[in-house]
Amino acid sequence: MPNPPPAWVQALKPAGPQGSELLAHERAQSNVAVDRLAELLHTKAALERQQRILGLLQPEKVFDKSQNHSLGRVDRIQRSLAKGKRLQQLAEQYKWTTEEVLTANELVGEPTPYGLHSTMFLVTLREQGTPEQHKLFLERAQKYEIVGCYAQTELGHGSNVRGLETTATYNPDDKTFTINSPTLTASKWWIGSLGRTANHAVVMAQLYVGGKNLGPHPFVVQIRDMQTHQPLENVYVGDIGPKFGYNTMDNGFLLFNNHKIPHVNMLARFTRVDKETNQYVRPASPSLLYGTMTWVRSSIVLQAGGVLARGVTIAVRYCAVRRQFQDREATEPKGENQVLNYKMVQVRLLPLLAAMYALHFTGRGMMKLYDENQNRMKAASQPDQDNRGAGPEQLRAGADFLADLHATSCGLKALASTTAGEGLEVCRRACGGHGYSSYSGIGPWYSDYLPTLTWEGDNYMLTQQVARYLLKSARAVLSGKAPSNDTCQILQSYLDRREKGASFDVLEVDSDIVAAFAWRTAHLTFEALKHRDVENRSWNSLLVDFWRLSTAHSQYLVVKNFYEAVSSPQLAAAVDSETLGLLHKLFRLHALHTLEREASEFFTSSAVTTRQIGLARTNAVMKLLDEVRPHAVRLVDAWKIPDWQLDSSLGRYNGEVYPDLFRRASQENPVNDLVFDPYPWNENVLKNGAPKSKL
Amino acid sequence: MPNPPPAWVQALKPAGPQGSELLAHERAQSNVAVDRLAELLHTKAALERQQRILGLLQPEKVFDKSQNHSLGRVDRIQRSLAKGKRLQQLAEQYKWTTEEVLTANELVGEPTPYGLHSTMFLVTLREQGTPEQHKLFLERAQKYEIVGCYAQTELGHGSNVRGLETTATYNPDDKTFTINSPTLTASKWWIGSLGRTANHAVVMAQLYVGGKNLGPHPFVVQIRDMQTHQPLENVYVGDIGPKFGYNTMDNGFLLFNNHKIPHVNMLARFTRVDKETNQYVRPASPSLLYGTMTWVRSSIVLQAGGVLARGVTIAVRYCAVRRQFQDREATEPKGENQVLNYKMVQVRLLPLLAAMYALHFTGRGMMKLYDENQNRMKAASQPDQDNRGAGPEQLRAGADFLADLHATSCGLKALASTTAGEGLEVCRRACGGHGYSSYSGIGPWYSDYLPTLTWEGDNYMLTQQVARYLLKSARAVLSGKAPSNDTCQILQSYLDRREKGASFDVLEVDSDIVAAFAWRTAHLTFEALKHRDVENRSWNSLLVDFWRLSTAHSQYLVVKNFYEAVSSPQLAAAVDSETLGLLHKLFRLHALHTLEREASEFFTSSAVTTRQIGLARTNAVMKLLDEVRPHAVRLVDAWKIPDWQLDSSLGRYNGEVYPDLFRRASQENPVNDLVFDPYPWNENVLKNGAPKSKL
Repeated sequence: MPNPPPAWVQALKPAGPQGSELLAHERAQSNVAVDRLAELLHTKAALERQQRILGLLQPEKVFDKSQNHSLGRVDRIQRSLAKGKRLQQLAEQYKWTTEEVLTANELVGEPTPYGLHSTMFLVTLREQGTPEQHKLFLERAQKYEIVGCYAQTELGHGSNVRGLETTATYNPDDKTFTINSPTLTASKWWIGSLGRTANHAVVMAQLYVGGKNLGPHPFVVQIRDMQTHQPLENVYVGDIGPKFGYNTMDNGFLLFNNHKIPHVNMLARFTRVDKETNQYVRPASPSLLYGTMTWVRSSIVLQAGGVLARGVTIAVRYCAVRRQFQDREATEPKGENQVLNYKMVQVRLLPLLAAMYALHFTGRGMMKLYDENQNRMKAASQPDQDNRGAGPEQLRAGADFLADLHATSCGLKALASTTAGEGLEVCRRACGGHGYSSYSGIGPWYSDYLPTLTWEGDNYMLTQQVARYLLKSARAVLSGKAPSNDTCQILQSYLDRREKGASFDVLEVDSDIVAAFAWRTAHLTFEALKHRDVENRSWNSLLVDFWRLSTAHSQYLVVKNFYEAVSSPQLAAAVDSETLGLLHKLFRLHALHTLEREASEFFTSSAVTTRQIGLARTNAVMKLLDEVRPHAVRLVDAWKIPDWQLDSSLGRYNGEVYPDLFRRASQENPVNDLVFDPYPWNENVLKNGAPKSKL
Repeated sequence: MPNPPPAWVQALKPAGPQGSELLAHERAQSNVAVDRLAELLHTKAALERQQRILGLLQPEKVFDKSQNHSLGRVDRIQRSLAKGKRLQQLAEQYKWTTEEVLTANELVGEPTPYGLHSTMFLVTLREQGTPEQHKLFLERAQKYEIVGCYAQTELGHGSNVRGLETTATYNPDDKTFTINSPTLTASKWWIGSLGRTANHAVVMAQLYVGGKNLGPHPFVVQIRDMQTHQPLENVYVGDIGPKFGYNTMDNGFLLFNNHKIPHVNMLARFTRVDKETNQYVRPASPSLLYGTMTWVRSSIVLQAGGVLARGVTIAVRYCAVRRQFQDREATEPKGENQVLNYKMVQVRLLPLLAAMYALHFTGRGMMKLYDENQNRMKAASQPDQDNRGAGPEQLRAGADFLADLHATSCGLKALASTTAGEGLEVCRRACGGHGYSSYSGIGPWYSDYLPTLTWEGDNYMLTQQVARYLLKSARAVLSGKAPSNDTCQILQSYLDRREKGASFDVLEVDSDIVAAFAWRTAHLTFEALKHRDVENRSWNSLLVDFWRLSTAHSQYLVVKNFYEAVSSPQLAAAVDSETLGLLHKLFRLHALHTLEREASEFFTSSAVTTRQIGLARTNAVMKLLDEVRPHAVRLVDAWKIPDWQLDSSLGRYNGEVYPDLFRRASQENPVNDLVFDPYPWNENVLKNGAPKSKL
């Protein structure tokens, strides 16, 4: 690294007022109860945990972040494996809980090559393995003796799992399976932790028994030697190359040339091939797996709030420090104006500030529903106090509940991850030129987050499932046989009221805002149903309508969850009335800004009038921006994202933006070790030995 | 690099039908005259030039692109300087014209450290230097004896040039200037070619003469030794570090500690400090510089079409090769369906296909206006045949024309670069999971393109200039003193017709579409004027309205330019009627899709009815997607972007997507040279020596 700058440079300070002064002023002008709000968002225990683990990680050299953005993939992935190893050592040393491991990973802030081992590989073994298989694979995997991955996606096959080409053929003679890749497109692809790290993989393959295809099933397959870590014979495996982000992960490819594995390697909790009869035994209860997907998607919703919070924290703090142009019409002119005072900046950032709260509370709501469902299922599968099992009524209600939860989680996963991903980019651009520097901390994070829009169900594909569910619900409502869930209720009340019209007072009554969003969903649902069932239009021709419908429904769910959260007695008990009032304003800002952005659907459905939309934009939203503005810095402070996690010069808690940018550029930037030879007639690019200038 | 894969892997082919067959089928089903269309878009000479230069560059090892996405910044920037040197050598050897140099740079596809030397540095010397300064600086710079950059932006100052802090104080005693950086935020920042390459800089600094601040002026400052390339004393200079993209450029910082430069180093074509009197001499004709900015922005509009074409070419070809799910309702079921057949994919990609044509023709139109303006100015400054100079009438008309062109170029620069930048990301996501691979070619290009949204006027800032111009025009129209340009005409005809209403037939009559866009602009202009002049609302409170207004106006300009291009006799003469008809459909697709996306502004302005909007969406746009779909591949082929330039496995002309992805992952990916030690209890991350597994 370069020498420290000369004394005359070290003596320079930014032109005043300093960033620290500006942020101190921001914090002084608001009474938001930062600590109480933080505990409400994260719990006291989680905040304490974060501080404790931060104290362990930050001093260790292995976790140094300063070179992350300058290094190439070969260096980065090796450093990341070293981080993963050290994290695992610490986890053993301190006997970390799952939550503590998660916290540590979040603070480190990059995927490590163990990422898929510690999540999907272990989860799949746990959920789909028999006790015998747990002993054989899971226990060793938990100790990292076996390092694994989950190999489903193929080079030619993403969302369509039924189209997978890898085969697993049962051999009745020796009771084994032969795993094979018949084509190049059958190559497993994108598999995290596979490229260089894993020695085992759970491979999803088309099971063939007696010549019959029984669909995709999971198999545990050893792929590398436990000692040399070289691929086994008839296994071709490697890393798939550089990516837009996620470059510290070894996403891999995998091909098999008729590779034999033992009978015990087919994960057999739900389905199996009987060794005695050589017959396939059908699945028992696939709905349990349904539950896992729902859990994963719900956690993506919750996480989306936190992801967005990272970008908004950086952008809000920096826009309070950055000043540009004088406001000649301002009443007290005093040098250049804070960028955060400009309406064009506010209208981009403050609705995202509101959205991060909205997504957080929605994710919480989803998690609660998921827990309810798990308890319900547990209750249904066990005899009750009177020693009776669940009756058919209860089972049907459970299935209805799960179907609703499943559709909800699909739509919200798509909406939340799109909002967070695109929101990060809005935050980055709101930082102006410096947003483009890696030291902003937003760009690298955006790049790493983007896969979330594709995995666990591509965001566009998922919208079809939501639409299918809404159409089904609408048919049930029309036939008078609807279950009593929220979805059917909003469809029913739309039908009841359709003739007399809506006339919601969205500008004055908060619950009317929620009702207007419900109305729009119902309107779009019955429109789509007419296209499908009456006009018999093809599924393909309706995909765009379905996407709009799913988005509308998911926006309704977020608005409803946010409204319920800010209206709950728990919240009123947890924070002071001023903070509570501000959270209500965030709700209105989120809802009315969304309403205005989607204006045309709201008034073609007659949920509101064009006059109301106009007023929502020019009056309500603009006024809310004014009201939220003074509290913006405290509202991001309440998320308590440590500077070390943000890794951002622009988003530093203390506002020392420019000294930090300068320090990193001049002191942590390896490019400054190079001395170029700038003359095109000299072949060498670096200045070596004798001067060669023509002058 | 790894060994070639074993024979059994090499024998594998993708599952059929092959990508080459699918693209051959696509090309067979359309009659679009690819070559004639290509000549129309680019000219025959440009296509020939591209082929010739491609033939020179592609075989040279120095231009190899295979490691671009795996290397770190230190390696990448050195390789890029080597490319820059070699390009300069070739330029001298083959005596390349400016156009040939541009073509070579576009084919190489990355900024090199010479980027700002060869553009802004040379241009500034040329335009703002005296003949003496041309001899002293420009001639040597053209020979690369002097290597320079253009240093305007500072750490604390971007768009607001008047806020720059660097000072240049005139010393009457020895007729020198002292350049100084009084604060840390005065550090020059983001300056391309400065960090490691330049030995000179044009520095924009606040000129002080006799204690008086005369605003920012340009000075030529030597910053590094010509022999050792080390920074001069009292100069602190370096690279600003890693960025979201553009990492092959050494954007730099620069600080001065009272650094003295000779009198001749102030660029003095327009303003100067007289050595005899020690007095500042005022600028002669600043409008010439105005013209340069207009030219740069117009070229960004033209380039935006080409940038978008790159993403659309990749996505359209890949979506024709990629297949997913069966369409169970299709009349001829035959395996999985091409992704391009899904309406949800079409609605994302085909309007972008239309937009790239729209932007291209608009950029062409802008360039033509720019040339007209240059000719007009030249004519006005020279005596005409009758030996008379330009009269006051002509001068005023010229100023009006330039003001209109300036506003147009501001708004279109913002709209075009935003459309291209965001469109690239839409293309990347439309490629599904593989879009995330660097081998898609879209992500790296997107990252490198993003600065265009900020430089040459931040896209949000620019919209204020457009709005200011429209308000001024509206006031002129109301006062009856408007110049006779298109902007004033559309405002006037809106006023004339406002009472009786619009009733444009956008679904049937193409010229009515253009009129509806003009109507919306005019409506928003007079709304904004009312807020400003009647309601006296503050400028800040109207920024969001101004941004909407600028966007609306710029969309009108694109729609109008596209319409004029497809209706022109030149076009009708250049291509067959089938291709011509298709270009008309692209016009309608672009315009109606935009209209539908901005629906609420169109019907609150009463330009169209809600019924028309509904029909535009469900009927017109959907039908146009069907009609354009079969020609999509040929319509991107016509842009003739060579595979080597695209650098994309997904967008290959021959459709061999999967073999190419596989080849690059397995053969060009240096991560596959690493053998990990996967066990967390071993500190080393690479497998060295004796096996250490616990098993």
